[in-house]
Amino acid sequence: MYDQDMAKAAGDNLRHVRERKPLVHNITNYVVMNYTAMALLACGAAPVMAHAVEEVEEMVSLAGALVLNIGTLSAPWIEAMVKAGKRANALGVPVILDPVGAGATTLRTNTARRLVDEVSVKAVRGNASEILSLSPKKLGSRTKGVDSVHTVDQVADMAVTLAQELKLTVAVTGAVDLVTDGARVCRVENGHEMMSRVTGTGCTATAIIGAFMAVQPDPLNAAATGLAYFGLAGEEAAAKGSGPGTFQVALLDALYEMRVEELEVGARIQSS
Amino acid sequence: MYDQDMAKAAGDNLRHVRERKPLVHNITNYVVMNYTAMALLACGAAPVMAHAVEEVEEMVSLAGALVLNIGTLSAPWIEAMVKAGKRANALGVPVILDPVGAGATTLRTNTARRLVDEVSVKAVRGNASEILSLSPKKLGSRTKGVDSVHTVDQVADMAVTLAQELKLTVAVTGAVDLVTDGARVCRVENGHEMMSRVTGTGCTATAIIGAFMAVQPDPLNAAATGLAYFGLAGEEAAAKGSGPGTFQVALLDALYEMRVEELEVGARIQSS
Amino acid sequence: MYDQDMAKAAGDNLRHVRERKPLVHNITNYVVMNYTAMALLACGAAPVMAHAVEEVEEMVSLAGALVLNIGTLSAPWIEAMVKAGKRANALGVPVILDPVGAGATTLRTNTARRLVDEVSVKAVRGNASEILSLSPKKLGSRTKGVDSVHTVDQVADMAVTLAQELKLTVAVTGAVDLVTDGARVCRVENGHEMMSRVTGTGCTATAIIGAFMAVQPDPLNAAATGLAYFGLAGEEAAAKGSGPGTFQVALLDALYEMRVEELEVGARIQSS
Repeated sequence: MYDQDMAKAAGDNLRHVRERKPLVHNITNYVVMNYTAMALLACGAAPVMAHAVEEVEEMVSLAGALVLNIGTLSAPWIEAMVKAGKRANALGVPVILDPVGAGATTLRTNTARRLVDEVSVKAVRGNASEILSLSPKKLGSRTKGVDSVHTVDQVADMAVTLAQELKLTVAVTGAVDLVTDGARVCRVENGHEMMSRVTGTGCTATAIIGAFMAVQPDPLNAAATGLAYFGLAGEEAAAKGSGPGTFQVALLDALYEMRVEELEVGARIQSS
Repeated sequence: MYDQDMAKAAGDNLRHVRERKPLVHNITNYVVMNYTAMALLACGAAPVMAHAVEEVEEMVSLAGALVLNIGTLSAPWIEAMVKAGKRANALGVPVILDPVGAGATTLRTNTARRLVDEVSVKAVRGNASEILSLSPKKLGSRTKGVDSVHTVDQVADMAVTLAQELKLTVAVTGAVDLVTDGARVCRVENGHEMMSRVTGTGCTATAIIGAFMAVQPDPLNAAATGLAYFGLAGEEAAAKGSGPGTFQVALLDALYEMRVEELEVGARIQSS
Repeated sequence: MYDQDMAKAAGDNLRHVRERKPLVHNITNYVVMNYTAMALLACGAAPVMAHAVEEVEEMVSLAGALVLNIGTLSAPWIEAMVKAGKRANALGVPVILDPVGAGATTLRTNTARRLVDEVSVKAVRGNASEILSLSPKKLGSRTKGVDSVHTVDQVADMAVTLAQELKLTVAVTGAVDLVTDGARVCRVENGHEMMSRVTGTGCTATAIIGAFMAVQPDPLNAAATGLAYFGLAGEEAAAKGSGPGTFQVALLDALYEMRVEELEVGARIQSS
């Protein structure tokens, strides 16, 4: 039932992150910076946060992946994201975008579309509303803050269409995560409801996919396995943490303590 | 001795936040963004952080309350606060102000006064020095950083006068919290000394009052009950956490796990 | 073997921070703001974060120490750092610099050098690569993000030379920390490997040294004892925390719970 090759790949990708310790360059939001850095360290990656237009091109040249996250946007940060993204493209550094709150405000929707337009983004991860707002066809999605109002099932077909149109991998996270590159579709069943009670779990998922993309050239593979790893860690953390504070801490421990074999057994990815 | 109607209202407000999940728009400081978002989620509210002048008016139009916090101020953020505040006023979205460090520097004092002047603020929460610095009469208060040098008792009369002058609800937090709208006065006895060992507990209290204001039109009621809820959670967290790190985490769990009935019994609010 | 006077000084400095509660003004990076503030509170100091050019001079005039950290740099923050630093100099407020990522990008390297050049910095703390990048002699060091590629032993001689050239105290942290003012050299053996798994432990070490400098006029003494205190807390936290999330929390508890006598016994500082 579950894709054994993908489960094996999840373990391989995690092992490679730990061995190679890729530098992951984040231009991300203020809310999640500390937690994202902690999560990347817990994976085995080396996080760096740098947003000044004066240095993003130089920084990304040292990196194995670039994570762009529009959660607390302002004009200078947008310029830095575009600049870093273009430099990453020139250098072959994979770029992943988290369109936080796209659909909620014009600034966010337009910025997310601009980034997809001007930068060759390998993968984008968001909830259903955020992802739908990227569609050039304007589906009329209206995001309530950063929450989603669609189910993964409702958007599965649209995600495939969007992936084909934009020529990138789309990861729609929710109760079940959907990952598609327009040809293949994966459903990742790992995860726990408690993850929605911690701020920035979506942003953290994106950063972890970024780390996996630094060692895995296939974005669909990196996204599906990264989400399985993160979701499985969430399941283990939920077994320990009673409330969201304890859970937030336990999730970092679980990312760190996850054994490769454990992930190979625990990853629940369906491919079609 | 304790106000049973207020205790009942505390429970009602908490239940309503959990049922309605109001979006709380925060323009706040970098230090507390993650923790504030976690605390709002733990309450049941939906936090969003957005500060760009290009989007704050659109974001606040989706919100049930607007929280303005001047803890790490700079010029563009001040403009965004004014703009968001005016839009909130036009839409009837309640605004709460946290004048972090007002009295310590001219920029903070002037910004806090400007916000109260140009925006119709429903409630302001701070320590005694911060609150006193808002008075047009210039009481000569000098804040040592974000710490207070007055006791609540010393400022009770001044808080009533200030609430009358500025036509808003004033919440002065300390060992005992004082809340007044100029006519009524509440004293909230919940809380624990350990809360002063965690950065941004004041800011978090303000955000929680914001969430309560999204479901409770009377600002005095929202502020007094919000502080009782937060204080009671602090008491429960102190029973678990030995040091400030553990306490910071346990406080989030306590906010999340608090039952409505527990709050109705535990809220210690005196009205006069 | 271990320096008993330094161990005694460590206890004295910690007691003085707790008694005097110095205000520590931080112009620091977004990633570590919350954690640094928590750590300073846990020590007994009073943290404040303020970066606006309009207020940094006024804020630093209230402070016992100024901490400059270039971890998430941009142009307005650089101006604020220079301005605050010059005012601190005029007032006799000690300044400590954390050159995060110097050597990785031109912006960071140049900013760190500019700060050392234009501001009278009492102490600088970084890893070996960051510290070496400050040398006017350009040692060709290339930082991989914020990680170090040299050992403390390799840079010991260079650190002494650098301290002499720049006329300040240099603290190079790693498996063993090296502190030198160009004449004296201390090696601090406290610490735990787990500290490298938590983001911003270096930044936190710098802030703690800042708090110690507010009560201890000898920068070498403040740096060596501050690092011993922080390292010993790390050892105690490691005995409790299994993963980095738990450890990050336990470290704050350990800073808070550390008894003066415990530090006097546990500080492992070698002087030469």
